[in-house]
Amino acid sequence: MSQAVRFLHGGEVRIGRLDGEAVRDAGAAGPRGFIPDTAGWAHVAAAGGPVHALADVTLLPPTVPTKVLCIGLNYRDHAKESELAIPEVPVLFAKWPSSLIGHGGDIVLPREETRPDYEGELAIVFAERFSRATVADARTRVGGYCAFNDVSGRRAQLETPLRQFTLGKSFDTFGPIGPCLVNAAGVDLDSLDVRTTVSGEILQSSNTRNLIFGIEELIAYVSMATTIEPGDVLITGTPGGVGDGRTPKRYLVPGDVVEIDVTGCPTLRNAVVAEA
Amino acid sequence: MSQAVRFLHGGEVRIGRLDGEAVRDAGAAGPRGFIPDTAGWAHVAAAGGPVHALADVTLLPPTVPTKVLCIGLNYRDHAKESELAIPEVPVLFAKWPSSLIGHGGDIVLPREETRPDYEGELAIVFAERFSRATVADARTRVGGYCAFNDVSGRRAQLETPLRQFTLGKSFDTFGPIGPCLVNAAGVDLDSLDVRTTVSGEILQSSNTRNLIFGIEELIAYVSMATTIEPGDVLITGTPGGVGDGRTPKRYLVPGDVVEIDVTGCPTLRNAVVAEA
Repeated sequence: MSQAVRFLHGGEVRIGRLDGEAVRDAGAAGPRGFIPDTAGWAHVAAAGGPVHALADVTLLPPTVPTKVLCIGLNYRDHAKESELAIPEVPVLFAKWPSSLIGHGGDIVLPREETRPDYEGELAIVFAERFSRATVADARTRVGGYCAFNDVSGRRAQLETPLRQFTLGKSFDTFGPIGPCLVNAAGVDLDSLDVRTTVSGEILQSSNTRNLIFGIEELIAYVSMATTIEPGDVLITGTPGGVGDGRTPKRYLVPGDVVEIDVTGCPTLRNAVVAEA
Repeated sequence: MSQAVRFLHGGEVRIGRLDGEAVRDAGAAGPRGFIPDTAGWAHVAAAGGPVHALADVTLLPPTVPTKVLCIGLNYRDHAKESELAIPEVPVLFAKWPSSLIGHGGDIVLPREETRPDYEGELAIVFAERFSRATVADARTRVGGYCAFNDVSGRRAQLETPLRQFTLGKSFDTFGPIGPCLVNAAGVDLDSLDVRTTVSGEILQSSNTRNLIFGIEELIAYVSMATTIEPGDVLITGTPGGVGDGRTPKRYLVPGDVVEIDVTGCPTLRNAVVAEA
């Protein structure tokens, strides 16, 4: 299955095909990064540039989205642990793209944020510009998928008046995404395992078949309102087991390593550090 | 006072200096539009290209921001009409940049949105990349300002579970901005009149001196969390008088014309139409 990366090598931002522990260079990245449309996948499939060891490159977020559309409370067990009702329509919120980091980048805890938390999720990335997708044609808009860690500052998220989520979700570095984009062609996005491991302990483990609102339904819903651009990202919600829902609470601390595993995608791994 | 526009003329996206009813051409626009830094203002001041009649160009949003940072409930009379408490910290939410339109563009009412509303606001636009501004140095980050209509689909905004605002605020065309950027140098942003007129009737009239959280405080607050990019937009809240707070309610209907006036900035005018 084809896997595309965006990476830094020799001071340049480049696109490549991930082949296990090697990256086949596919040339300079454009300003929007890798766009997972037919041309994008053909381009990385045909990559004939030098081979870099994965250890010698710095992975970046695969795309540079104009929007990261986020769905809250989309697993019943997470709604329950949050002591909130099962939603009857999707809970949509925003994460600013400036929060994104790649695999291997550090999650930096701001000194104001006393309750930093992890949220493992499936991210899907769109291949084209569209609006008003139907449930029937929604799936054709998806070009790739990957793992996402919707790192959440619970203090900021829940203490903002009216509990608007965006601030707590959008601290710089609070959006690990990757490590690569996986070609979504032929993949059943509604039956992928999603697992979060923090410093060796599995703390979330579910499957996208447990989503309250499925992928097609979410795409139709968000694109009713807003035009989606190629490379835009939709994160689909996190299952139960977040740190804030545990007894005792399990917030992130400097030294933690957070791993998100989604079926078919290499592990997304990021260390947690304190702000300098 | 220098005023910069981004516009469409002869099929090209261009930058120019607004001189009353004329636009002096300053060359092709870059992908991020007009950036209101020292170089940007010098560039439009020195513009020596052809002069277009304002009526012959299509105005676009002056900048192409990566983020539109929005502040809710930042005037006491609006908090009161919304039947919500005066916030003790700023209410921050997101509006997706895909919602932006320029002066003269149509506000298109989606067929699902039964309660579309206007919100006149002061928008400020940042000149540089920064994070963690202090209240003392925040003002130096602002390069320009203009009028903004934070059009709000109250049905979507208030019926989304947990009242996350982003969806109702982010319908395509729900972000009129402009008509130009006004050079913020030497301008006291905390004493600007903000007025909204709908189809000839003045429905909001206040002054930024009535902001609960002032401009410097807002900039310090948002940049604590997230890195600001040049051209990013901060909208500062709307005063009392929105349609949803009136008796009887005064929602937007096709045929309405909404005008936002901010001291020192030409009127931002947009007509309201039904979705085709």
